[in-house]
Amino acid sequence: MTNKIFMLLTFIGVPVSVIGTLMHWPSIILFIIYCLTIIALSSYMGRATESLAIVAGPRIGGLLNATFGNAVELIISVFALKAGLVGVVLASLTGSVLGNLLLVAGLSFFVGGLKYKRQKFNVYDARHNSGLLMFAVMIAFVIPEVFSMDMNDTKKLSLSVGISVILILLYLAALFFKLVTHRGVYQSDNEAQHHNEEPEWGKGRAILVLLLATLAVAYISENLVHTFEFVAESFGWSELFIGIIIVAIVGNAAEHASAVLMAFKNKMDVAVEIAIGSTLQVAMFVAPILVLISLLYEKSMPLLFSWQELIAMVSSVLLMVVISNDGETNWFEGLTLLAAYVIMGIGFYLI
Amino acid sequence: MTNKIFMLLTFIGVPVSVIGTLMHWPSIILFIIYCLTIIALSSYMGRATESLAIVAGPRIGGLLNATFGNAVELIISVFALKAGLVGVVLASLTGSVLGNLLLVAGLSFFVGGLKYKRQKFNVYDARHNSGLLMFAVMIAFVIPEVFSMDMNDTKKLSLSVGISVILILLYLAALFFKLVTHRGVYQSDNEAQHHNEEPEWGKGRAILVLLLATLAVAYISENLVHTFEFVAESFGWSELFIGIIIVAIVGNAAEHASAVLMAFKNKMDVAVEIAIGSTLQVAMFVAPILVLISLLYEKSMPLLFSWQELIAMVSSVLLMVVISNDGETNWFEGLTLLAAYVIMGIGFYLI
Amino acid sequence: MTNKIFMLLTFIGVPVSVIGTLMHWPSIILFIIYCLTIIALSSYMGRATESLAIVAGPRIGGLLNATFGNAVELIISVFALKAGLVGVVLASLTGSVLGNLLLVAGLSFFVGGLKYKRQKFNVYDARHNSGLLMFAVMIAFVIPEVFSMDMNDTKKLSLSVGISVILILLYLAALFFKLVTHRGVYQSDNEAQHHNEEPEWGKGRAILVLLLATLAVAYISENLVHTFEFVAESFGWSELFIGIIIVAIVGNAAEHASAVLMAFKNKMDVAVEIAIGSTLQVAMFVAPILVLISLLYEKSMPLLFSWQELIAMVSSVLLMVVISNDGETNWFEGLTLLAAYVIMGIGFYLI
Repeated sequence: MTNKIFMLLTFIGVPVSVIGTLMHWPSIILFIIYCLTIIALSSYMGRATESLAIVAGPRIGGLLNATFGNAVELIISVFALKAGLVGVVLASLTGSVLGNLLLVAGLSFFVGGLKYKRQKFNVYDARHNSGLLMFAVMIAFVIPEVFSMDMNDTKKLSLSVGISVILILLYLAALFFKLVTHRGVYQSDNEAQHHNEEPEWGKGRAILVLLLATLAVAYISENLVHTFEFVAESFGWSELFIGIIIVAIVGNAAEHASAVLMAFKNKMDVAVEIAIGSTLQVAMFVAPILVLISLLYEKSMPLLFSWQELIAMVSSVLLMVVISNDGETNWFEGLTLLAAYVIMGIGFYLI
Repeated sequence: MTNKIFMLLTFIGVPVSVIGTLMHWPSIILFIIYCLTIIALSSYMGRATESLAIVAGPRIGGLLNATFGNAVELIISVFALKAGLVGVVLASLTGSVLGNLLLVAGLSFFVGGLKYKRQKFNVYDARHNSGLLMFAVMIAFVIPEVFSMDMNDTKKLSLSVGISVILILLYLAALFFKLVTHRGVYQSDNEAQHHNEEPEWGKGRAILVLLLATLAVAYISENLVHTFEFVAESFGWSELFIGIIIVAIVGNAAEHASAVLMAFKNKMDVAVEIAIGSTLQVAMFVAPILVLISLLYEKSMPLLFSWQELIAMVSSVLLMVVISNDGETNWFEGLTLLAAYVIMGIGFYLI
Repeated sequence: MTNKIFMLLTFIGVPVSVIGTLMHWPSIILFIIYCLTIIALSSYMGRATESLAIVAGPRIGGLLNATFGNAVELIISVFALKAGLVGVVLASLTGSVLGNLLLVAGLSFFVGGLKYKRQKFNVYDARHNSGLLMFAVMIAFVIPEVFSMDMNDTKKLSLSVGISVILILLYLAALFFKLVTHRGVYQSDNEAQHHNEEPEWGKGRAILVLLLATLAVAYISENLVHTFEFVAESFGWSELFIGIIIVAIVGNAAEHASAVLMAFKNKMDVAVEIAIGSTLQVAMFVAPILVLISLLYEKSMPLLFSWQELIAMVSSVLLMVVISNDGETNWFEGLTLLAAYVIMGIGFYLI
């Protein structure tokens, strides 16, 4: 069903986006068309990646998921960096972290909890992820801000680049740990099964879909970022708010939907993997890659979030660590995460 | 025994308070009389609420405890708000959170631990409470302070009001979770028993006691708040210190005593419920209700604590989360909490 | 093998240090000689303390380890205080905390994890230590900084002295808890064994070695602190960096080596005890003792770390609490701690 909607959206959205761009339609309308089309396209990219991952086996597949999982957000961000919108990119990273940790996980826990009284997921994964969340947010994101207060710009950038390299290396080490040295070590028996899945598409078709969808997302993203300024003005939104709420939601919408669906099917391990795994991917891979890519453009992007962004991320991580620590969820834990998301939404809106 | 002392204190304290007020005795003397009388009266209110709760059954009873449990503090605070003492009210909320988390829980763990080597309590409740503590303090209290640095007063108040509404809604949802959808789900077998208690008073008498005690507390509180200024001057205390140490202790003394008593009887679940449940009630119900009530007065109260108050609360919550996480206590964990309370007491005194 | 290297280093290093000092060799060369000699001597002090501890039995032995375990760092710091280098001393305390929590524990977990897939240690000890880490760093270290923003110098010092006294008292209480009231209570069976060890040296010889090594360390330390200024200038390092990286590593090198060795032998309890126990000793005993000793000198040392130092310590503690919470380690957890150490090293170098 959802697949059909996304198909419709894609086959209408892509040509309309091209026509609208060429005919210079009003920015607000273009903004909405772009957003919807990207959401639909990102669902295709997700399914193509998933199919390739199944074909390629667990190791290469895990690697594929870990690198292409947030491709849409990466593409939009690269074009935003090219347009010099450093603040929007940082905000969209924050938005992605908050969105995955609070909105996606919150909705999954809540919706799943309405159907099941107690839902369990692998407690070892939860703790492994907690350690990485602490590392990425409390150390890699907080240290640059705190230490660069008295630094000049060159030193600030050196610190950011150094930390970015370490983040990427540790992310690769985490993949190596999960896919090679400790694969299955912490797995419960009933998890070991759901690996003989059938891919939706064959290898060739999946690569073709991935390629076409990526090209389309790239084309639309380049135009999307130029509408931000007008949208911000029209609605009285700050660029921060656009980055945190809009870009983050557009970039992750398809993923969000599948996490909630998994929770509803009581596949809590998958739902948590999408929500928290995606957070880690953004924090430990997308963010540092963008810092390095930004060195190629005129305006480089240090890994310096605003205090508000940092505190919002740190408190979300701590809340998630405490809530996920026991490997169990219920509707109320989901509601708590959602309430935290609403509070932060209000905060970023009013700022 | 304690009941007799409180009875004596009440029957002497109430008339003496009235006479002293009418005859304009010195503020310091009145302050002491008021405080002692309120402590005694609050023990009556506690016992009346308890009796009503038993008569009304677990659901309505839980609701009664959850709303009337901190009635005394609410009453004092409303009169302080009416007198424009916004700083004192915020400080007394801080004091209540610190007092319950560090002093009450600390004393309970310590005193109980002197008698028993290891005391256990329900680890599910502990984790549920940890999540709520993190939410209330690290998110609902921290976000307004961090986000409102660059806001004007209207936006600050909007943010506070929005967060207060969310806090109250989540508090009600927590009650619904605990009393309806998940009642008994996380309960161990030996807990299920101590519910066939006898109420101390019948329904009619309990309501009468509650009504009279509430009226007396209200009368005395209204006069109490006007002595703060003189007491602060006489002793060289800041209003912050009065709020944090004095108001918080007076408002919670009776409760404190019963938590320690329960720990001594090895009823750790009840002791923890009083200490941490009371903290949550203050943070998620009393505090936001006061924000909303303050809108009726000239000087409204945004949910903006000072940095010192915030850091003190955040570090106390984190300490408690780490200590209570395993569902076990001993005398040393109690001493650690007490040491933290003393450090903060020194800090707030010197400030 | 290591013992032979340390013996060689000692018998060459001590006389060369004396000659170099008397002949006023260049500061950089002296600095290197001093550092190497102290590392060698501290290994002797460690072995002597260990021997005495075994002879004296578990209680007095535990006390000996708990007080002499960081003697070298204490001695260097006292001479640095005497020379008025308050900033260097605070930095070296930070460096010790970070070094033990991130570098020593990280290397132990990593090296041990290369050999063993999953290594376990006593989860009760881990939780007990987590509570103390939170108390020492998040409360005793954070509160003075946050509360003294608006205080005059006398009040700042009063607060520091008060907190130092509480820290020492709680440290003694922790020893009483561990060695007297709760000895063996939380111990697993296979731990109870490794206590019938043979001391390396007899009582008399151990005391003699301890005495001589302490004297030599004192003599060299007094000269070492006077080279800091020149080294800082020559290499372009800040005194902060010297304190955090150099002093902390020199003061703890011998200990570091033995923790890693223990991890490699799969004696995770001992490795963790060295890494985290040593952190607690620095934070709860060495630091407050130095505050009290500093009152004897011209320039007293309040317990006021810089914001960078505080945030680095707080985030390290939280990372360690989350990672050690389950009583299990693997190579990736070690790598995560090491990555955090490198990030902080870069930060303090660039500051």
